[in-house]
Amino acid sequence: MQEIKKYVDENKQRFLDELFELLRFPSISADPGFKGDVLKTADFVAGKLREAGAEKVEVCPTAGYPIVYGEKIVDASKPTVLVYGHYDVQPADPLELWKTSPFEPTIREGKIFARGACDDKGQFYMHVKAFELMQKTGTLPCNIKFMIEGEEEVGSENLGIFVKENKERLKADVVLISDTAMISLEDPSLETGLRGLSYLEVEVTGPNRDLHSGVYGGAVANPATILCKLIASLHDENNHITIPGFYDDVQSLSEAEREKLNEAPYNEAEYKEDLGVEELWGEQGYTTIERTGIRPTLEVNGIWGGYTGQGAKTVLPSKASAKISMRLVPNQKSSNITQLFKDHFERIAPKYVSVTVTEHHGGEPVVTPTDSIAYKAAEKAIEQSFGKKPIPTRGGGSIPIVALFEEVLGIKTVLMGFGLDSDNLHSPNEKFDIANYYKGIETIPLFHKYFAELS
Amino acid sequence: MQEIKKYVDENKQRFLDELFELLRFPSISADPGFKGDVLKTADFVAGKLREAGAEKVEVCPTAGYPIVYGEKIVDASKPTVLVYGHYDVQPADPLELWKTSPFEPTIREGKIFARGACDDKGQFYMHVKAFELMQKTGTLPCNIKFMIEGEEEVGSENLGIFVKENKERLKADVVLISDTAMISLEDPSLETGLRGLSYLEVEVTGPNRDLHSGVYGGAVANPATILCKLIASLHDENNHITIPGFYDDVQSLSEAEREKLNEAPYNEAEYKEDLGVEELWGEQGYTTIERTGIRPTLEVNGIWGGYTGQGAKTVLPSKASAKISMRLVPNQKSSNITQLFKDHFERIAPKYVSVTVTEHHGGEPVVTPTDSIAYKAAEKAIEQSFGKKPIPTRGGGSIPIVALFEEVLGIKTVLMGFGLDSDNLHSPNEKFDIANYYKGIETIPLFHKYFAELS
Repeated sequence: MQEIKKYVDENKQRFLDELFELLRFPSISADPGFKGDVLKTADFVAGKLREAGAEKVEVCPTAGYPIVYGEKIVDASKPTVLVYGHYDVQPADPLELWKTSPFEPTIREGKIFARGACDDKGQFYMHVKAFELMQKTGTLPCNIKFMIEGEEEVGSENLGIFVKENKERLKADVVLISDTAMISLEDPSLETGLRGLSYLEVEVTGPNRDLHSGVYGGAVANPATILCKLIASLHDENNHITIPGFYDDVQSLSEAEREKLNEAPYNEAEYKEDLGVEELWGEQGYTTIERTGIRPTLEVNGIWGGYTGQGAKTVLPSKASAKISMRLVPNQKSSNITQLFKDHFERIAPKYVSVTVTEHHGGEPVVTPTDSIAYKAAEKAIEQSFGKKPIPTRGGGSIPIVALFEEVLGIKTVLMGFGLDSDNLHSPNEKFDIANYYKGIETIPLFHKYFAELS
Repeated sequence: MQEIKKYVDENKQRFLDELFELLRFPSISADPGFKGDVLKTADFVAGKLREAGAEKVEVCPTAGYPIVYGEKIVDASKPTVLVYGHYDVQPADPLELWKTSPFEPTIREGKIFARGACDDKGQFYMHVKAFELMQKTGTLPCNIKFMIEGEEEVGSENLGIFVKENKERLKADVVLISDTAMISLEDPSLETGLRGLSYLEVEVTGPNRDLHSGVYGGAVANPATILCKLIASLHDENNHITIPGFYDDVQSLSEAEREKLNEAPYNEAEYKEDLGVEELWGEQGYTTIERTGIRPTLEVNGIWGGYTGQGAKTVLPSKASAKISMRLVPNQKSSNITQLFKDHFERIAPKYVSVTVTEHHGGEPVVTPTDSIAYKAAEKAIEQSFGKKPIPTRGGGSIPIVALFEEVLGIKTVLMGFGLDSDNLHSPNEKFDIANYYKGIETIPLFHKYFAELS
């Protein structure tokens, strides 16, 4: 531990500078306009892996963005950790809400503000630096493999193919991922579950062209109004989702399990204050921790139609659209839920409009075991580094690939995230506390140490 | 009539060329980015009035865009016609739906395609050319005043002030406006009423920032979902508007009046085919003609919130907004309806969001008399020019200033429109039939003739 701290202390500024370099690439995978930047980011990551001492480093092409692979095999008889992360980031808009430029990282009050600071550049880069530390101090106790992809924010479609085609190369005993949050530095936690995802886009078409709302208003269905009616009907008065069959496969937890889950620190007044809302909203009969952890949800991620510019335009639009995603919990199946949504939405659309439902991407929910060697190693590492045993929590987000690792590679995942829920992931002013960044670099070598020892 | 036709025939190409020049100005009053173009349009109109023989032509400044005034007083004892029109146009977007550029007028199948072709450049310019014709042929039978404004598409706020401040200058016996439609060249019609307007913008705010839809989804109200619920609730299952008091002042027509109204040519199959819809939508208990003519409506003109770019972004937006307008009928009051909407919308907003309602602009509904000298003159003019007596109809659109003319100047209006409902007003591919343009120029001098004779 002393040695770890010493190395981190001596390299603090460089660790930060390198992360800043990485954050300056606008590697937005969703927007084809940033293609060149995404590709440059992959090369940068590969270079840094090589510098840190990784071997067989390769920028592996896929049908989409490449996957950066690298490894260090110290002894074939020792256990192997597969580190997963992603170098792509969410779009940065709405840009006008950023206090400083999303791709020019800026420190304010001990926090790094930049798109990707926490999700996931800041977090996967901790592993690169922890690896460097173990290499340079001769303390790497097990084999390590890196797989850093560039399409996590758009569904990891090509990673799925890559994993299937590279089973041998990716052989490992555990997947280690830092792409989630902990409660706080004071209340460290480990996520033991992730929600799945079904993401769709709907388009409602009324008349075949935009119409004058005076000449035609009142006589022809307005697709924006109809879209609102359709979306409004997707939740009932108790905020239950109304899609038939939606809850059929939802795993229900026992009273005891729910009680344990609700023991995690949670202060409703602070939660509301942080979000700036007077009242919380959610499915009746469940707490906030349950609503974001063990219950499925349906959210409108975007909606648009008609005239959205300045001033007033009296148009009756031809089309209105929305992006809608559902978070899923064990044992819901993404493909099944996507189909249920599609069928339902098409069925409830009235005859005076036509609707199309397009799939974006999906992912399966997962629960990670808390009795595995890997979980125990993570627990011990955090306890030593933070001075406190981590609380097991259920994460609301999704890392669709985790279920795939389990299915294809037959290995479980440990979700050792060092972010915070308040890090504004996917939002303007995304941040990562510098303290968490260094704490992560210090904790990761301990994980490897205990994982090797316990194996 | 022979003389009129001869003059039009001899000047056909020039009449078209001049209109094209006028249509090339992107005089979009709603978008401040086009300010320079709007101002140039005013100067162009003033120049053309002067060339046609108008006197005291002035580009009158206002707090917004100027009003172009010009007059020709032939004899103070003769009646005076005040011609009103507007040189501003609606925004042209969505641009990608235009077959040819909105500000490069193009002829296809005998129609002029351009933003403003019908609304209202093509239509008010007929009056400028008809005036030229009467001047050049020495047949102007009465006094004429022109008032062409540049803010009709954004609520005519400054025209209201101008009219109040220029009562003496604007003194006239009738207001003549071509800014409406007729059924067809085969079934000429005259509008005898216009709907009023209340235009508002609503903004629903949930959390104080965009959130990760996984981390927070299900635990905090999504303003897009709430906006949909609020909008959905504004119409009941019979498509009646649910705002309390909304229908209180609505003038109901007698069975006989409704029957007469429904005698106008209307073919539902053709109407649906033209719009490309399988089924019409509207307030139960009323026909299409009634729904667009004598019943008030509420339309979403635009809606937006969250991520609307390419691909998928799993965001729970902080805000969602909509532009909503209501068309009003006699005896509804725009200010009253605006207030009712505001009160209702604020009242129904649940506690977990905050809403703001901003007024755009409004206008009062009007009914024009069918027993006046002016109406009879218009009827005779059309009968002579088209060979058929015009059918009186009720227009669904709004020209907010008409009610003001009545109130401030104490004079009634004749709505002698030569457009068609299918001219794509406010839509991509706005058009004006060349035949209608020339027919208008031929009919207008007859109106002046009969108005002078009957007065």
